[in-house]
Amino acid sequence: MQVLVLNSGSSSIKYALFDMCTQRVQVTGVIERIAESGGTHKYQYSSNGTEQKQAISLVINHHQQGLSIIFTLLSELAFIQKVSDLLCIGHRVVHGGEKFCQPTLIDKAVLEEIKQMIPLAPLHNPANIIGIEAAMAYAQGVPQVAVFDTAFHQTMPDYAFRYAVPKLWYAEQGVRRYGFHGTSHCYVAKQAAQYLNKPLNTLNLITLHLGNGASMAAIAAGESIDTTMGMTPLEGLMMGTRSGDLDPAIIFYLSRTLGLTQNEIDNALNKHSGLKGVCGENDMRAVHKMADQGDQQAQLALAMYSYRIKKYIGAYTAVLGRVDALVFTGGIGEHDAWLRAQCCAELSVLGIQLDAQKNQQLQADLSEINQARSLVKVLVIATNEELEIAQQAECCLRKAFS
Amino acid sequence: MQVLVLNSGSSSIKYALFDMCTQRVQVTGVIERIAESGGTHKYQYSSNGTEQKQAISLVINHHQQGLSIIFTLLSELAFIQKVSDLLCIGHRVVHGGEKFCQPTLIDKAVLEEIKQMIPLAPLHNPANIIGIEAAMAYAQGVPQVAVFDTAFHQTMPDYAFRYAVPKLWYAEQGVRRYGFHGTSHCYVAKQAAQYLNKPLNTLNLITLHLGNGASMAAIAAGESIDTTMGMTPLEGLMMGTRSGDLDPAIIFYLSRTLGLTQNEIDNALNKHSGLKGVCGENDMRAVHKMADQGDQQAQLALAMYSYRIKKYIGAYTAVLGRVDALVFTGGIGEHDAWLRAQCCAELSVLGIQLDAQKNQQLQADLSEINQARSLVKVLVIATNEELEIAQQAECCLRKAFS
Repeated sequence: MQVLVLNSGSSSIKYALFDMCTQRVQVTGVIERIAESGGTHKYQYSSNGTEQKQAISLVINHHQQGLSIIFTLLSELAFIQKVSDLLCIGHRVVHGGEKFCQPTLIDKAVLEEIKQMIPLAPLHNPANIIGIEAAMAYAQGVPQVAVFDTAFHQTMPDYAFRYAVPKLWYAEQGVRRYGFHGTSHCYVAKQAAQYLNKPLNTLNLITLHLGNGASMAAIAAGESIDTTMGMTPLEGLMMGTRSGDLDPAIIFYLSRTLGLTQNEIDNALNKHSGLKGVCGENDMRAVHKMADQGDQQAQLALAMYSYRIKKYIGAYTAVLGRVDALVFTGGIGEHDAWLRAQCCAELSVLGIQLDAQKNQQLQADLSEINQARSLVKVLVIATNEELEIAQQAECCLRKAFS
Repeated sequence: MQVLVLNSGSSSIKYALFDMCTQRVQVTGVIERIAESGGTHKYQYSSNGTEQKQAISLVINHHQQGLSIIFTLLSELAFIQKVSDLLCIGHRVVHGGEKFCQPTLIDKAVLEEIKQMIPLAPLHNPANIIGIEAAMAYAQGVPQVAVFDTAFHQTMPDYAFRYAVPKLWYAEQGVRRYGFHGTSHCYVAKQAAQYLNKPLNTLNLITLHLGNGASMAAIAAGESIDTTMGMTPLEGLMMGTRSGDLDPAIIFYLSRTLGLTQNEIDNALNKHSGLKGVCGENDMRAVHKMADQGDQQAQLALAMYSYRIKKYIGAYTAVLGRVDALVFTGGIGEHDAWLRAQCCAELSVLGIQLDAQKNQQLQADLSEINQARSLVKVLVIATNEELEIAQQAECCLRKAFS
């Protein structure tokens, strides 16, 4: 009983094959530079207890060919015999708008609706759709399930998701907070509940997904009630190359004073801001190295990054009323002990007290790093968006055919 | 010993004359529709213990003529004998950029520097400058002091005032958080210290100036360390007609989908958003009336307005570490008991516990409305920006000539 998870970008396909009985990944890989020169296929899997890693250069003309390469590999390695062996294929889809609040079995009507979301996510949804269409063509008869990054946050109340803008912008143009990284926030929330040995629907959590993109969610009784990313992934926390929160009037100011176009400002705020804008580097490890060597811009970037997280921890504590646990995840959240310490420093007013030593010495997938007397638990949990997509796809399928 | 306070708009002059010995206002007034049809001069003062109010229609061709009208009135009412009796004139100036962190005696060089701030506040600074120039011409020899709305927030640390945008935008274009309403935040902070009978520089406060414009400040050891308004007054809380915080990418989205120009979006976010955008009304009393009659959009607008304040109370509690008092001020902050209750509801996690009855029954200028066991005091303090400007102008003058 296997589920294949596909995350299709404009010139790439990431994939992971799961055995749903063991809940373990069998193969993961990525096909890159589709329809470009220098195409590659990298993958890894376990064989007789040792990790095998491969990277192959090849020409990949289109996504369907990329899928053919993936399925050929899965057969060659004997993970599947034929395509129809798969229980289903789970597709990551970035934007589900207000329409999709849970994983959805894809048929022509659903595909059409996902296409209608393109204006909301003009960079991401078209790439996701290419992947879905290629998979529907290549793996005919295999159920395809869309799992949306926005779906987990569809439980937000209107006073949290609405912006204070002309109401027709909401009614006619869909201008509202949607939030992203839903699969990751959902996954770590469930893991936290399992660790705390309490039903998720009794828990209030603040989850922090800190990677190159970064967002936080306020989770009340297991449901997302607020999140830092907004209508797009630009809002909220400071990120690798994205600005996060910003006085929107800065856009008007820059167009007046520097004569920048909307596209130039859009590009600058998404690709040349965040850590990169402040200190020139978007990789957190590189920023740390610079800061350690005395670079003041890098030190400032780190101070800004953690300060903004701290403000949201306070904001979400206020709206949750009681917080059972703070959960760090994502590349930075899982691996940057210094940053976790900064974000939690002097927060005893909120009942948060980190244990400095535990924060440095993590267990494999889940660590509790608060002091015993801390009212709020602080957890570090390795996220697994692919497994969450596989689980949600399987669950969706069972509901659809039950 | 008198100080005249002037707040000059593009077609108006507000003024207040203070006796600095008693710290009491003698006359307040406003001249409106300068260089327009239907000019008016409204003013009020005390005479033999009764309040006198006047409104006179007249043609006012320019600001200098407006000043002449004001000074004629002050002589007629025998509050001053001649212009040179004034200790000084204190001018409200909206934007002092990074240059002005305290009230400043105006000479030609200072005036030139205030003019250089015009790009930062293209609507406000030019009008302030017209008032200063008119006063310098009319009241030659009387010291003129500029008191800046931004000055109180110049103590913010860089990690709070910088945006995560390309650093040249800061270095060369001044793109950073400045904050506004500084005079009001400063005034109520001092009043709170006096009431709490502690030196201001030992107190951590969260001040909420809620009027048609609205902002909050985090005050640590008496100094502003963060505030909700940003480079412009658009950022932060939801206001009467301003959106407050917003995913900046919404601007790009609307220009793509609706073909709106920057000016149209700028205008919409500043003048047709906030309470007005959500429910059609920007006056808080009208919004309450609608909500009480069951209007769902008005109910939503109120929920959004208070929810966003609550988030900032949490955010500022997190960065302050300890909060001695929450201070409500401004037209809405001083008069809207329902809103104060909403903003403080279920915040015992932050040590805030309102007394419902005290919240309804205020004293004149300062009321403590928390329960006795509340760790954080909650105060309602009537703001007095004009008096603060008069005091700061006087203080500036004494320093300059001491």
